[in-house]
Amino acid sequence: VQALILAGGSGTRFWPLSRRTNPKQLLALEGDRSLLQQTFDRLQPLVAPEAVWVCTTETLAEAVREQLPEVPPEQVLVEPVGRNTAPAIAWSVRTMPEAARQGVVAVLPADHRFGDPAGFRRVLAEAAEVALAEARILTLGVQPHRPETGYGYLELGEALPAWSGVRRVVRFREKPDLATAERFVESGNFLWNGGIFVFRGTVLLDRVERCMPELAAGVEAIAAAPERTAELYPALPADSIDFGVMEKLDDIATLPLDCGWSDLGSWEALAEILPTDAGGNTEHGDVLTVDCRDTLLWAEEGTVAAIGVEGLVVVRTGDAVLVMPKERAQDVKAIVERLKAEGRGERL
Amino acid sequence: VQALILAGGSGTRFWPLSRRTNPKQLLALEGDRSLLQQTFDRLQPLVAPEAVWVCTTETLAEAVREQLPEVPPEQVLVEPVGRNTAPAIAWSVRTMPEAARQGVVAVLPADHRFGDPAGFRRVLAEAAEVALAEARILTLGVQPHRPETGYGYLELGEALPAWSGVRRVVRFREKPDLATAERFVESGNFLWNGGIFVFRGTVLLDRVERCMPELAAGVEAIAAAPERTAELYPALPADSIDFGVMEKLDDIATLPLDCGWSDLGSWEALAEILPTDAGGNTEHGDVLTVDCRDTLLWAEEGTVAAIGVEGLVVVRTGDAVLVMPKERAQDVKAIVERLKAEGRGERL
Repeated sequence: VQALILAGGSGTRFWPLSRRTNPKQLLALEGDRSLLQQTFDRLQPLVAPEAVWVCTTETLAEAVREQLPEVPPEQVLVEPVGRNTAPAIAWSVRTMPEAARQGVVAVLPADHRFGDPAGFRRVLAEAAEVALAEARILTLGVQPHRPETGYGYLELGEALPAWSGVRRVVRFREKPDLATAERFVESGNFLWNGGIFVFRGTVLLDRVERCMPELAAGVEAIAAAPERTAELYPALPADSIDFGVMEKLDDIATLPLDCGWSDLGSWEALAEILPTDAGGNTEHGDVLTVDCRDTLLWAEEGTVAAIGVEGLVVVRTGDAVLVMPKERAQDVKAIVERLKAEGRGERL
Repeated sequence: VQALILAGGSGTRFWPLSRRTNPKQLLALEGDRSLLQQTFDRLQPLVAPEAVWVCTTETLAEAVREQLPEVPPEQVLVEPVGRNTAPAIAWSVRTMPEAARQGVVAVLPADHRFGDPAGFRRVLAEAAEVALAEARILTLGVQPHRPETGYGYLELGEALPAWSGVRRVVRFREKPDLATAERFVESGNFLWNGGIFVFRGTVLLDRVERCMPELAAGVEAIAAAPERTAELYPALPADSIDFGVMEKLDDIATLPLDCGWSDLGSWEALAEILPTDAGGNTEHGDVLTVDCRDTLLWAEEGTVAAIGVEGLVVVRTGDAVLVMPKERAQDVKAIVERLKAEGRGERL
């Protein structure tokens, strides 16, 4: 089994900790290993280090190679420009040697969290077994425990013959409204789309050719003349793999994951999974509190002191501090947009 | 008129901005001049720069001289150790040349604020006139506008003959409870003790001799052998001028001040006097806010960003951040005590 870790993201939801050159996947948010490193760790021993591939950007490649010294450096693939996940996956798979491409490939986001890595590996191994036996794309769907409106959902169909627990995906459902999400979760017939896909590389490339022929042709052109990658890659159609390929297929199957998954989509989501003290506070680094409750205090550099606050996120880095109620964590982007608009690149 | 500015304090109420080597009086909290510099500025043109004396500590002397280049350096008097205000004042006055000592001296805290400096000078000039004519100590009492329990009060007696508006002080009242403070303010017969005293130097020394003979003897011993200051000063009785002298006298008089006084006793007190934007926020330095109200955001270094918070104080320095509701501003000392207890001198 080959693993392809998608590590090109440049999200801003963990500002001021996450920056353009130090995005979420490179941050150690839980323990002392980064999310990328934990994604790598989580695969062991199922996927050998020399079978791990990472797709990332020019800006991050050096940091990725430093964080993952076990991965052969040439398997850290560098997109000339970010063109969304369909080109990243198709190009990365096509770049693998023939033998690897004909085997099973698991595509994994670099910045998600699983509380139960062993459980994750069991499901991944099962999906790999199915993918090896059947020419179809598998997804790992996350068992939903709340009517989240921020995720896409997979609607489940009949069970696959011969594979207990593997279900067809009837369709991909975009982020629903709250009433719809509640109905989805109550029905027991939906999983969250966690962005994890398992397939034989050749099957994926076949499906790309069927659904996105222009992308397939572009990827073949690069394979025929790798020295022209920088010239050809930027012209690839910039679709997500979900929109460009997965949603167009009717033979996708899924296995449910229930392993303490979180996409760590915000400071609030991080606070939910980190251990708290008796007052419900989570402290990272040099933190002093008096009468605080239910507060995430993060001192990346220097000291964070707080008195009598409740339900806040307080983050201090070497050059910035952010203070907000946890429930406003989605609005970090407003600060980041302001910095962009003001040309404050040194804080981004 | 000579002015003696007491600038030896080492308060911690403006932590993390105030530090042992950079206490409140040296901070520019309102505008770009420090409270010490504003205290000096406020005296002009009533008191010539060469008639200004500052009493401070070894730690702060260099910074004081840098901040007040107009004051003759030898008039920045350096206490070998802090021994409270009675020794500081008695020793400083005794150190002045005979001619200065026989004239009027105004003792002023270095870290208070007056919104109306011209009004302050008018009252100070009037007090100096009284002190020149009568052998008594004058205080400037602050007209109270709220039943503050954190200050001492001056209880007013009859008017002094021949001086309109000058009243005897019947007694000094220590910090009252709230009910008492309310009664004081309603009666119209009390002023806050703002720690400003005006007297002829010789009168002050006479009163010290009467009330604190040990201090008077010590100060005379130092005057007789100034080279032994470092040895003799630490043995002076460490009382406040209020407790050691003023409260024991029955001939003190006072003039009321109503000039936008604040002792800037906390971050909350500072927020009250600084200008606010439409949302009631006060911003200092590089601050970004989204949906904030009634919040003081102070970026001494780096960036402070806040989303959706209300009624907070957020202060960021190069090495620390403090977050608290304004009404908890008195509890900064709890953080400082914690740092002391943990031997964290680098943050103090």
